[in-house]
Amino acid sequence: MTGSLSIAGLGPGDQALITPEVSAALAAATDILGYAPYVARVPPREGLVLHPSDNRMELQRATDALRLAAEGRHVVVVSSGDPGVFAMASAVFEALEAAPHWQGLAIRVLPGITAMLAAAAHAGAPLGHDFCAINLSDNLKPWSTIEKRLQLAAEADFAIALYNPRSASRPDGFGRALALLNDAGHGDRLVIFARAVSTPEERIETVRLRDARPDMADMRTLVIVGNAAMRRVGRWVYAPRHAR
Amino acid sequence: MTGSLSIAGLGPGDQALITPEVSAALAAATDILGYAPYVARVPPREGLVLHPSDNRMELQRATDALRLAAEGRHVVVVSSGDPGVFAMASAVFEALEAAPHWQGLAIRVLPGITAMLAAAAHAGAPLGHDFCAINLSDNLKPWSTIEKRLQLAAEADFAIALYNPRSASRPDGFGRALALLNDAGHGDRLVIFARAVSTPEERIETVRLRDARPDMADMRTLVIVGNAAMRRVGRWVYAPRHAR
Repeated sequence: MTGSLSIAGLGPGDQALITPEVSAALAAATDILGYAPYVARVPPREGLVLHPSDNRMELQRATDALRLAAEGRHVVVVSSGDPGVFAMASAVFEALEAAPHWQGLAIRVLPGITAMLAAAAHAGAPLGHDFCAINLSDNLKPWSTIEKRLQLAAEADFAIALYNPRSASRPDGFGRALALLNDAGHGDRLVIFARAVSTPEERIETVRLRDARPDMADMRTLVIVGNAAMRRVGRWVYAPRHAR
Repeated sequence: MTGSLSIAGLGPGDQALITPEVSAALAAATDILGYAPYVARVPPREGLVLHPSDNRMELQRATDALRLAAEGRHVVVVSSGDPGVFAMASAVFEALEAAPHWQGLAIRVLPGITAMLAAAAHAGAPLGHDFCAINLSDNLKPWSTIEKRLQLAAEADFAIALYNPRSASRPDGFGRALALLNDAGHGDRLVIFARAVSTPEERIETVRLRDARPDMADMRTLVIVGNAAMRRVGRWVYAPRHAR
């Protein structure tokens, strides 16, 4: 009885953005665990047990997944986007560290198209130069750390991908982030609001940072603050390859 | 006669990491353009014209691709990894900006699994917290800009993905980058050297930064400098979800 655990990325929404590697893992799975909306993206079939769970249950879900794999099941933990970017892979390794007897299990992380890559592709090429990714959720880190990173990222002239910019339980942070970047002299920057990328509800909007309003982002939005050189061409934006 | 241009990411090497969206674009193409080793990854077939070209020919290649699409061809420009991350998408938009008469063309950017996501997945979850990506090539930007960004990224405690760390024509920059990070007090950090990820030659090695040597990286290596919290668990490394 040899089980396995794959931590897989479903990409941003479009089935055509799920890698064949992930599709094969889903086809071979006996059990799927994940946040309910992501589990709902896996087509049900005879013999496949779906274990949807709530947001903020990451560590419990990771432990459950390891236990099922130890029992001989073929388990896939699904994340949206890439499982290693603000998603389930870290939680699984955290659970694994707490349970050394499971460290011999067959574990694989299967990469996926993370939101910023899909958003960038549909907007043009805003990440064509050096960039960073910051999770704006302060559930697991102090807001002061987020502010410090935004400040340093602005000083470095990185393009900045902002994950989880705004949710019902965190309505204010994104506005503070915009204010900080404005105060840092970044009002001229182009900011991309990419909502529900690669789904039928996709909407991409680009404005100057000084014109950006907090309510332009919600839970399904990925925000990219362009670097100083980012330019418009036609309906696209892009970061030139040369930098000073 | 309506042509099209797709700028597509082939992922890090494994066919199972090419998205169905990209596979469909390749299947519908009449012409493939790209750096020769990437074009060589596209299976030849009757009626498909392959246009391999040299490194550093990006802008010429982009212009050629636009012209072919304007002539009614179905053109795919291929990049390794993701086309928007230090790859061809920026060059195409640069060429497009110089040629406004082509701005009505049907252009799409098709995302791919960029090297840092594949490297991270096979190493564990080093990008599970805030991170940045820096291209160490100083062909198109001054080395002083790279040093400044490394310094600020270190101060921000980002995990740092280093693309193009070292090549025959740029043998010294990576050693200077390691020295800078050491001097910034980062000697204790774990550094991942991920070579030829997802190919049969894949090799992943993790050492403390103070023990990292420049010759551990070459053209096919993606380097990830972990954040302060990055930890080993079994054969894996991961960035915990919590941060101070």
